[in-house]
Amino acid sequence: MRLRLGMIGGGQGTFIGAVHRIAARIDWEYELVCGAFSSDAKSSQASGLLLGLPANRVYNSYTELIEQEKQLPEHERVQVISIVTPNHLHFAPAKMALENGFHVILDKPMTFSLAEAKVLDRVVRTTGKLFCLTHTYTDYPMIKEARQLINAGKLGTIRKVYVDYPQGWLSTFLEGDGNKQASWRTDPGKSGIAGAMGDIGTHAFNLAEYVTGLEVTQICADINIVVQDRKLDDDGAALLKFNNGASGVLTASQIAAGEENNLKIRVYGETGGLEWQQNDANSLRIMYIDKPVEVWRAGAGYTSLFALQNTRTPPGHPEGYLEAFANLYRNFALTIKAGLEGKAALPEALDYPGIKEGVRGMAFIENVIASGKSDKKWTEFSI
Amino acid sequence: MRLRLGMIGGGQGTFIGAVHRIAARIDWEYELVCGAFSSDAKSSQASGLLLGLPANRVYNSYTELIEQEKQLPEHERVQVISIVTPNHLHFAPAKMALENGFHVILDKPMTFSLAEAKVLDRVVRTTGKLFCLTHTYTDYPMIKEARQLINAGKLGTIRKVYVDYPQGWLSTFLEGDGNKQASWRTDPGKSGIAGAMGDIGTHAFNLAEYVTGLEVTQICADINIVVQDRKLDDDGAALLKFNNGASGVLTASQIAAGEENNLKIRVYGETGGLEWQQNDANSLRIMYIDKPVEVWRAGAGYTSLFALQNTRTPPGHPEGYLEAFANLYRNFALTIKAGLEGKAALPEALDYPGIKEGVRGMAFIENVIASGKSDKKWTEFSI
Amino acid sequence: MRLRLGMIGGGQGTFIGAVHRIAARIDWEYELVCGAFSSDAKSSQASGLLLGLPANRVYNSYTELIEQEKQLPEHERVQVISIVTPNHLHFAPAKMALENGFHVILDKPMTFSLAEAKVLDRVVRTTGKLFCLTHTYTDYPMIKEARQLINAGKLGTIRKVYVDYPQGWLSTFLEGDGNKQASWRTDPGKSGIAGAMGDIGTHAFNLAEYVTGLEVTQICADINIVVQDRKLDDDGAALLKFNNGASGVLTASQIAAGEENNLKIRVYGETGGLEWQQNDANSLRIMYIDKPVEVWRAGAGYTSLFALQNTRTPPGHPEGYLEAFANLYRNFALTIKAGLEGKAALPEALDYPGIKEGVRGMAFIENVIASGKSDKKWTEFSI
Amino acid sequence: MRLRLGMIGGGQGTFIGAVHRIAARIDWEYELVCGAFSSDAKSSQASGLLLGLPANRVYNSYTELIEQEKQLPEHERVQVISIVTPNHLHFAPAKMALENGFHVILDKPMTFSLAEAKVLDRVVRTTGKLFCLTHTYTDYPMIKEARQLINAGKLGTIRKVYVDYPQGWLSTFLEGDGNKQASWRTDPGKSGIAGAMGDIGTHAFNLAEYVTGLEVTQICADINIVVQDRKLDDDGAALLKFNNGASGVLTASQIAAGEENNLKIRVYGETGGLEWQQNDANSLRIMYIDKPVEVWRAGAGYTSLFALQNTRTPPGHPEGYLEAFANLYRNFALTIKAGLEGKAALPEALDYPGIKEGVRGMAFIENVIASGKSDKKWTEFSI
Repeated sequence: MRLRLGMIGGGQGTFIGAVHRIAARIDWEYELVCGAFSSDAKSSQASGLLLGLPANRVYNSYTELIEQEKQLPEHERVQVISIVTPNHLHFAPAKMALENGFHVILDKPMTFSLAEAKVLDRVVRTTGKLFCLTHTYTDYPMIKEARQLINAGKLGTIRKVYVDYPQGWLSTFLEGDGNKQASWRTDPGKSGIAGAMGDIGTHAFNLAEYVTGLEVTQICADINIVVQDRKLDDDGAALLKFNNGASGVLTASQIAAGEENNLKIRVYGETGGLEWQQNDANSLRIMYIDKPVEVWRAGAGYTSLFALQNTRTPPGHPEGYLEAFANLYRNFALTIKAGLEGKAALPEALDYPGIKEGVRGMAFIENVIASGKSDKKWTEFSI
Repeated sequence: MRLRLGMIGGGQGTFIGAVHRIAARIDWEYELVCGAFSSDAKSSQASGLLLGLPANRVYNSYTELIEQEKQLPEHERVQVISIVTPNHLHFAPAKMALENGFHVILDKPMTFSLAEAKVLDRVVRTTGKLFCLTHTYTDYPMIKEARQLINAGKLGTIRKVYVDYPQGWLSTFLEGDGNKQASWRTDPGKSGIAGAMGDIGTHAFNLAEYVTGLEVTQICADINIVVQDRKLDDDGAALLKFNNGASGVLTASQIAAGEENNLKIRVYGETGGLEWQQNDANSLRIMYIDKPVEVWRAGAGYTSLFALQNTRTPPGHPEGYLEAFANLYRNFALTIKAGLEGKAALPEALDYPGIKEGVRGMAFIENVIASGKSDKKWTEFSI
Repeated sequence: MRLRLGMIGGGQGTFIGAVHRIAARIDWEYELVCGAFSSDAKSSQASGLLLGLPANRVYNSYTELIEQEKQLPEHERVQVISIVTPNHLHFAPAKMALENGFHVILDKPMTFSLAEAKVLDRVVRTTGKLFCLTHTYTDYPMIKEARQLINAGKLGTIRKVYVDYPQGWLSTFLEGDGNKQASWRTDPGKSGIAGAMGDIGTHAFNLAEYVTGLEVTQICADINIVVQDRKLDDDGAALLKFNNGASGVLTASQIAAGEENNLKIRVYGETGGLEWQQNDANSLRIMYIDKPVEVWRAGAGYTSLFALQNTRTPPGHPEGYLEAFANLYRNFALTIKAGLEGKAALPEALDYPGIKEGVRGMAFIENVIASGKSDKKWTEFSI
Repeated sequence: MRLRLGMIGGGQGTFIGAVHRIAARIDWEYELVCGAFSSDAKSSQASGLLLGLPANRVYNSYTELIEQEKQLPEHERVQVISIVTPNHLHFAPAKMALENGFHVILDKPMTFSLAEAKVLDRVVRTTGKLFCLTHTYTDYPMIKEARQLINAGKLGTIRKVYVDYPQGWLSTFLEGDGNKQASWRTDPGKSGIAGAMGDIGTHAFNLAEYVTGLEVTQICADINIVVQDRKLDDDGAALLKFNNGASGVLTASQIAAGEENNLKIRVYGETGGLEWQQNDANSLRIMYIDKPVEVWRAGAGYTSLFALQNTRTPPGHPEGYLEAFANLYRNFALTIKAGLEGKAALPEALDYPGIKEGVRGMAFIENVIASGKSDKKWTEFSI
């Protein structure tokens, strides 16, 4: 049985729309049944046609989609709605979808503001519908392994966390050349109060909290607009304090000229450390004080169920970004299906980012930007 | 429009069957419409059910599949048949499928013997149906880039080729423990005259010829059965001569204990060299006599159309084995569709391994095994 | 002609004393002629004996060494004095040596306090003697290349600097076990006000300023004592501002469990970036916005004189830490010799760390520790 | 006490002469006391002067050096003679030095021919003088560790050995441009019957035998002259059989355009494998069938005495080629000194390449070249 999936946004020519669809197809837990792919009706229809949808399931707006689908018989009606619009168009469709009985998959950062995030949090709790936020990077198998190892005490109490997210693609004033990706990401009206911090800083923040199982309690940030005339931050760094007393450093830059997308994390505890980077995503380095470094590999028999269930191939057959995205889609599907069957979902399936991560991510944005403007060293992480 | 795909073999519990289906779904150029997933009728039905196929399109044998599908109206009938059985069950269904008007995707090595391969070659030419052989590794974008660069003379005349395929999973007598993958691969009745040389040596051979655009003309091989009681080679190495006078070395081993699947190639010409390995599949190292090494990256704007068309994401979003497999499926689909539309397929689409590679692969098996048994140093590569 | 070298400190069993002597010997620009190797007279004599020095050139204290050597005829008398004592014993012997006409090589951090550093600065200027500070890492050939490339505008205006110095050897309370290296480094009476920040933070700071040619103007630091009962910081991170408006992040930790000594730097400008790490010291990665990454290599013909003159072997014959240390010794010797011959030293020879770097290093210690204690975000870098 | 060292060859402008002197100085076990640095008397004198030797200890020929030094009182007389001439000038000075009571350090390959090697073997045995052959690569600490681990059974019985030595510097007809290094190495009158196989193939061969503790028994070689008009091989590959039944592949090329000097070895046994490459000389990868790969590091406390005694610095302070060379010099010195003191040398000190390795190296040259010319597949390795 495949879940019936609908999309809001993500029409022709959008990068992330195609990624969502591939992710949904890889494990074939979903069937795309409807969509409102663009706020432009013609464009939405054209996208739907290309995707092979019947015309009557391609809608001109998200409101139309939700209202019409709700009228359909239960066995035809869409079950999960994936929302892949720019940040300012996250909240309203997500809220409406949840309130009308649909499960929701939403792109990060979760909303335009923390205030919206808190409302959505309540909506999720009230409606009881399931909610998944696409913090893709935490769905790499070796990231899941890292979390399991730390949780099991492999490194002792965590003392230090470094997370770095360098990109270089905004090194020039790309938004001046009409680049679509750059334009909305640097537009306060569409992105919110943060640029790089919202786009990639939230990923780094989420990765740090996910892997360590800790929560950030204080932030001291240096937030920069490096490229002239840009309206939102394109670079930043933050000193962090965690709830167990550990400290950390988070960096996120989109003006690290020549860098692609090599998100990295290093965590150190009393007895050892670990290191992961997306460029070598299938490896996890474990360091010890007095033993050789170990390189743990995705798909290997010695890894945990959390890693193995998120790998499709034996060691040495590299899986990458699209498979990480697919893991997220699959785990969400398995959780939904367990619910439909009245069963408890497996811990491995439940291990996908959700509303809590979304609220914390929005709080990160507000706190990190506030800290960037503050003369005080430490800003309490408040929600 | 999606092509209608059928499968022979590849039922529940087989590794490669699932891989084929993921590959077919990633770019959504195919829809699975029928299958004969196992020689055991019950098992075939169970697999079909799981895959969501209607019972009347799940068959008990490949002959039934081909005969029944042929009766269906053209717009319903399967168009492409994927054959994912062990080697001894490649030839008959492939031949029958082609002769009954279906395009064929076939696992490597192509057939059980070179004699069968030659017959299949004639069948392909006679029927005019399209044929694709799953030499996955040549469908990595940076391998395509390597071929383009060499073809454009970037390295000058090629002088030396090294290709290595180390695996360690057959370091113990796994077939004695009932391991399914190991059992048929080490069984001369199912694999043919070669073990490791057929299973992975053919990939290494194909990669060397594909990247360089050269053909092997002479082989001097050392073929070993290392693990006691094994019936087929699990290790080998071969000195090579190419048709332009270049020389090479090919190694393939399944007893390289601790190795996963890190296929590697290095090629040197008059003015430079290149290096690629599957463990870092999105990078291609280009070396020069008097300039810094360059690391070319999948998805980068400076790469050729052949690479770009086989990448789905921007640089820094790693794609891997499943995407390489999907490239093969997509390119084959684009070629079929061009034919259906009466157009010439694009060069990038046509760049998939086919019958010629299949025949040469089977010739490699026969020549390398013959050389292994010969006291003479050089064995002419004969077909 | 070899320069006559004397040593203060660095007797038997000290790590860094042996390193200095190897460094001095590698290029044979020095001959060890005398020493006061320990404050313990017997131990000094024993060390001198082992090193093959005549008994009358082995002294019981640095004052004795300086006074006695001064009496010797000019052609016998020591010319350069290397001081390899713990921090609290840097200033007095350095000052006395300079004031008595000797050139000085001094371990970092330069002095016990910034106040001492300023005095030493005046002494150097007044006496006109030459002074070298052992910031070894800036004497790696590819670090010199990095500086040259940035200075020549290869990356455009510098925007972002990351420098990381992770060590793990102080992850436990080693000073409690009588470990000599750990004991003085964690003792405020011997190290000064900083632990990790003085020991390795100064290296990271120096590397950042050297490579970029920029100066730090503001610091925002998080300074930690992680291991219980330790008296000085063993971990820290700092946000940085540079005099051209660039920003940066510096991290230095001695509780990064499992890490050895992998100092790393990444610098990004308008048009590209570069990356170096000590673990792969003979490579320098240069990144561009729209071209492949280049890997520049020590010893290669395309590198600058500054790199080539600090390499002894062709590319592919790795040189390491001891050779970097030797570069420093050699460049200092070449500068001294040019002076003795009344010539101007070559720019490549003059390129060694000296009194200015020493003063800035001590200022870094005082500023970073002050910032660590401050509630204000930014501390002006003052000297 | 330092051993008195003399040099034959290795004057100004030679690469390897300077390397020998640095190696001898690093651990200060030797003092250079005399030399016949060139067959040209003036050049020899000039070199001696630069090296600070008294004129009466700089000789015009090796015969003069040996005869004159022999006349000196025992406590002045040279003790160890290092011979760093081209291959055709190895045998005569080595033989004469040994027969006149001096210990000898000799560059590889040991002699011009196997016949000479056998004579030298007898001379060493007859005279009882000590003999060291500069197979530098086996003196890297992690190579020593590899040998110890294999010897201790860490990988089980060895089954497969791959050793690769790629260089690119002879990709063009460099000897036509008067390049000194290229000229003698490609001149049969100076190098002997082999080019690349003698120059670097012998290193690869020695490394394979040293690390595994096995001996090659059969060779099947493909030997090529790739660059037009060259007189000796510049490329080759050989299939190998070892005395325990293991097989192997050795490649050595000087036309691998763009390669520097990245000697690599991989060895696989029943239960695991290991991998080392000179570009990352301080790491040794250990692989297991069912455990994570381990990265063992030079200087680490968990390594054997054989590794630790050949490392000067803690982990993370990279040592390289010159230190490996120095290890060889030091171990030889420690062995000589033990003899002088009437003690047995420590096993770690005795672990340097000597006459046996020299004879086997020359046999390798003759056998591999013979195999290259043979139509038979396997050539017995005969001495």
